[in-house]
Amino acid sequence: MAKSKTHVSHRQYDDEESGWACMNWFEYMLVVVLASLLLLGALTLTLFWALYYAGGFAWTEEPARQFNLHPVLMVAGFITFSGFSLLLYRICRCCRRIYVKLFHTIFHALAIPCIVVGFIAVLDSHNLADPPIANFYSLHSWMGLVTMGLFALQFVVGFFSFLILLCCEGATAAFRASLVPIHASFGITTFMLAVATCLTGLTEKAFFKLSSKYSEMPEEGIIMNALAMVLVALGILLSYAVRREPFRTQVKTFVTERL
Amino acid sequence: MAKSKTHVSHRQYDDEESGWACMNWFEYMLVVVLASLLLLGALTLTLFWALYYAGGFAWTEEPARQFNLHPVLMVAGFITFSGFSLLLYRICRCCRRIYVKLFHTIFHALAIPCIVVGFIAVLDSHNLADPPIANFYSLHSWMGLVTMGLFALQFVVGFFSFLILLCCEGATAAFRASLVPIHASFGITTFMLAVATCLTGLTEKAFFKLSSKYSEMPEEGIIMNALAMVLVALGILLSYAVRREPFRTQVKTFVTERL
Repeated sequence: MAKSKTHVSHRQYDDEESGWACMNWFEYMLVVVLASLLLLGALTLTLFWALYYAGGFAWTEEPARQFNLHPVLMVAGFITFSGFSLLLYRICRCCRRIYVKLFHTIFHALAIPCIVVGFIAVLDSHNLADPPIANFYSLHSWMGLVTMGLFALQFVVGFFSFLILLCCEGATAAFRASLVPIHASFGITTFMLAVATCLTGLTEKAFFKLSSKYSEMPEEGIIMNALAMVLVALGILLSYAVRREPFRTQVKTFVTERL
Repeated sequence: MAKSKTHVSHRQYDDEESGWACMNWFEYMLVVVLASLLLLGALTLTLFWALYYAGGFAWTEEPARQFNLHPVLMVAGFITFSGFSLLLYRICRCCRRIYVKLFHTIFHALAIPCIVVGFIAVLDSHNLADPPIANFYSLHSWMGLVTMGLFALQFVVGFFSFLILLCCEGATAAFRASLVPIHASFGITTFMLAVATCLTGLTEKAFFKLSSKYSEMPEEGIIMNALAMVLVALGILLSYAVRREPFRTQVKTFVTERL
């Protein structure tokens, strides 16, 4: 379109373009910095809560303190590592597609031991308690199982489809292309589900631990609510970041390339 | 591309196209039917819980039963009405854009009285209880405030930008076009946040009402967990439906048209 216009309007068009690019760059940086701060903030707040208010960590010798590993490792795996993995895959503009893919996989792979140990920690802390505490009755535990199932499915499907199937690149291109939007959609959904599961877990813990004192807004309650608000902000920001058109458009070329 | 091919490959191409269209149509119908069933199912389960397990409804004369209006009306407003509104806007293929827009607005407008009365019901049930129960201390209440704020912002911005600004259609087209992806992104995020808020509310209620009996998996606990699973399924299904490429591509033409 610009080609058919005069020199002046052409320059004006270019100025507008660069104005937009500048705005997009500013927004892009803001989202990246804010999301990174929130992802690290969520983990820091959980660690602070576990160390300062819940007595730190232990293994099977002290089931009550072994429990504290559960929130910290689940937030590390499902929120911080997974969040960074989503973020860098969607908005990384500088590296070759295969490196971005590998980093995406590595971040998700780092989440796996966190989730496994976090899961064992809560099971142990229930089973070794005196008297033992029942497992899998609360809706938090049901949601946790669904989230872990979706996470595992996404990891296995993603690993085989987007890394292993690269060995016969040409033959599997159409299949991989059709899988990209499904994998992306379920990726952000798994993250949102993980956020929701953390929030129900926090609610449980706040009422178990603080009981009627919770309504008097003690320091610990405010820290737990603040952590919840950080998780809510992350849910809003990340689902915005992965869907924002300027980021998406930029990434669309990568995605087609990156099947 | 098909034009440059032979008659045979042209027909094959057409066959493939219609095969895909048929698959997409089947998937589309499956998503619509399943989402509608789940949206109505969530409301039915909440109503059933309120009537069968929680003693039905009352107004200020009986604060404990007035509370029961809160979950029912919040699920009706934030989940059922909002969910149908999202669904019909994103995937309605048969009507003129202005009708789809109006239905989208009407469904959201119907949610407003539900949310307002649901909010008053919980405030009353706290303030009129003997002794009164504190407000806005739990993370459920904080999340509720954020969700209501986002819902109100979306409604006001959507109403003015996509309906009122139509009066000067040409002049506001670029502005409205830039707002579409932001409104869509925050729309599904508000829905997911509403789902998460419902889940924390359900967790609170289950532990308050069932207390230690919850771990013995009573009938009421199973109903509450089942409601939570319906909400989780809705979160997964709706965020899939609004992002699925065949639906989106189809709708893309509408969206550009429908600024």
